[in-house]
Amino acid sequence: MATQPKTAQPNYARRLAQTRVRLESEQLDGLLVANHHNRRYLTGFPTEDHDIVETAGWALVTPKRLALVTTTFAIIGLEATVTPSGAEVLRFDTRSAWEIVAETAAEDGVQRLGFEASYFSYERYDRLRTALRRRSRRGGPRVEMVPAKSVIEHVRALKDPAEVAAIRKAGAIAEEAFERLVPTLRPGMTEREIARRLETLMVDQGALGPSFPTIVAAGQNAAQPHAVAGDRQVRAGEPLLIDFGAYADGYCSDFTRTITLGEPEPRLVDLYAIVREAQSAAERALAEGVRRGRDVDHAAREVIEKAGYGDHYLHGTGHGVGMAVHELPSLTRARPDRGLTSADLAKIEHLEPGHVVTVEPGIYLEDWGGVRLEDMLLITESGATVLNERNPERVRVVA
Amino acid sequence: MATQPKTAQPNYARRLAQTRVRLESEQLDGLLVANHHNRRYLTGFPTEDHDIVETAGWALVTPKRLALVTTTFAIIGLEATVTPSGAEVLRFDTRSAWEIVAETAAEDGVQRLGFEASYFSYERYDRLRTALRRRSRRGGPRVEMVPAKSVIEHVRALKDPAEVAAIRKAGAIAEEAFERLVPTLRPGMTEREIARRLETLMVDQGALGPSFPTIVAAGQNAAQPHAVAGDRQVRAGEPLLIDFGAYADGYCSDFTRTITLGEPEPRLVDLYAIVREAQSAAERALAEGVRRGRDVDHAAREVIEKAGYGDHYLHGTGHGVGMAVHELPSLTRARPDRGLTSADLAKIEHLEPGHVVTVEPGIYLEDWGGVRLEDMLLITESGATVLNERNPERVRVVA
Repeated sequence: MATQPKTAQPNYARRLAQTRVRLESEQLDGLLVANHHNRRYLTGFPTEDHDIVETAGWALVTPKRLALVTTTFAIIGLEATVTPSGAEVLRFDTRSAWEIVAETAAEDGVQRLGFEASYFSYERYDRLRTALRRRSRRGGPRVEMVPAKSVIEHVRALKDPAEVAAIRKAGAIAEEAFERLVPTLRPGMTEREIARRLETLMVDQGALGPSFPTIVAAGQNAAQPHAVAGDRQVRAGEPLLIDFGAYADGYCSDFTRTITLGEPEPRLVDLYAIVREAQSAAERALAEGVRRGRDVDHAAREVIEKAGYGDHYLHGTGHGVGMAVHELPSLTRARPDRGLTSADLAKIEHLEPGHVVTVEPGIYLEDWGGVRLEDMLLITESGATVLNERNPERVRVVA
Repeated sequence: MATQPKTAQPNYARRLAQTRVRLESEQLDGLLVANHHNRRYLTGFPTEDHDIVETAGWALVTPKRLALVTTTFAIIGLEATVTPSGAEVLRFDTRSAWEIVAETAAEDGVQRLGFEASYFSYERYDRLRTALRRRSRRGGPRVEMVPAKSVIEHVRALKDPAEVAAIRKAGAIAEEAFERLVPTLRPGMTEREIARRLETLMVDQGALGPSFPTIVAAGQNAAQPHAVAGDRQVRAGEPLLIDFGAYADGYCSDFTRTITLGEPEPRLVDLYAIVREAQSAAERALAEGVRRGRDVDHAAREVIEKAGYGDHYLHGTGHGVGMAVHELPSLTRARPDRGLTSADLAKIEHLEPGHVVTVEPGIYLEDWGGVRLEDMLLITESGATVLNERNPERVRVVA
């Protein structure tokens, strides 16, 4: 009898331990987590929040416990998803969530409670602050609320084997869907039609949906890095840029292909070769052990600059991918103007084995169109592995 | 030559004037709008934000202007969408958005600047507060930030003719898709399969997508008012509850149908009749001019209570529908425990001509399943009009 390969399980203990290490370095002894990816990452609770005012709850980390603060209404039927993480479920059916958080934080001796300031509405901040003050006025210990940023995001950057497997699966779904799409493409189809078809194919392959609204940009529309698929019909020979990914089992993939229908315009052939070379340079840098985002960006950018298109490379070279389609680390030029300290920047652009990142250089000409090529790579001890079929060396022509 | 009927246009002037009236009653002279529906409602800018940390900008109302605060990157190609509203576009390409908001508010003499506290992250609140203080320390006027709640939401409750037309269209798309779905249903299909098929049919009919994740709940799963479509296969005779809506041209529809495949269980026939009668009672109340949410709720609830199922009616009777699938007004029991003042509650449950609301009573039995029937109604001067085909008098049987 053959043994079945075991499916890797999320390593919740490591996630929580790493979170506590990060909290300590920020002089915090508790954290209230509002972002739904971060909440799922710590507790396993899979519900997604689609609106800031309709949340299914919060994760709470204290020195003594990991808790999921939620309602019976939200958790019913999902209890088993939380068991492997060991999170204790605190239900706020009759009392307010803020009373329960305030009580738990005080009980567990939290003095400085971090909260995810980017994901916490002012209104909720104000309610929790009020609840904490009320307890303290009644003689309870004083718990200070401290805005915290990217604590779990930094932990999430490092993927465990179960996560890498999930990202690979989301990648395989997207690639298979794309291969099924390509033979059906014809001049005259609209961008929107192509986008919808690709998304349907991804769902047919097992995706819950696309990992972001699929970009299909034909001809001049491809000059916009964040084009929206519209009514433009695809014409023969022009660039057809497709930026897409699948969302499956809570993880994302993210690829960009630039192809053409019929004989390619000479300019497309030329620009494609430059972008492909830039992409290869960045991927080589990762494979050779470059571990700082700006240096990988530089490797790609240098090729495009030397070819005379430096002003037409309008974005960074890549970003992390995981539960969210854009996450840490960042592979881009240093941006001292963003008000980041150099220590913050070093954390954001630091690359290490277990990170999954995109490499996606592009050239955009306003009056013509654009070319972008995007792969996903896993950074390893010895270098980096491309997680998908690379874009071909020469522009793919759909006959 | 026949004249073309004119498409009704959004009445941006009324929207802004009504917003200013509401601001005055809250002793505010400015408002910073973060919710993307509210932003679009005032300015016409159609971009949707799918993540609190990735916003396309803010609308700013001062005594002197309506502005859209955004970046070139976000507005490019969309300038024309903003023209009809008269919103001035303030771009924050080189300076921070907060500097620009602080400067504009001060220039226009704003003293008390409301901000949408439920939609504003703490982080952004803190940045704007810092920018305002910096200006004031340099000798500028003092601008106070004041948490504001539901200002535009109350304006949005009242639909203008263009909005009613858009909601009707979103309703017609959903109904047509449902009619195409029903003949294809067979025992053994999974909830998820049915949900996906209905969503595809809505897109085929012109929807951008569903207005919320389609609920398909078979048998016992229908006992959960907010069931998620899963792998459960539909069996003959049991309740099949489908709660769905289309999103088109920025507006939502929202319907619930409970049907069955083959000979219905006797209990389904009985409960259906009770829920249908409860729904009729609430719709009659609206048609007869009842204008307080709790009274409409009472009309439906009374029928269900008299039939002995009062404890199994687990939610309110209805809610407003428009740009969002859940909006004001609220048709439910008075909830004094929620910390609302009675004046707040009166505003929330006040009904008037131009409101579009759902009426959706239900009965849920944990060990069996549930029945919910949901229509959309437009409140008129003389009463109320159902915006769709009502659920039939007896449970629909798919042979």
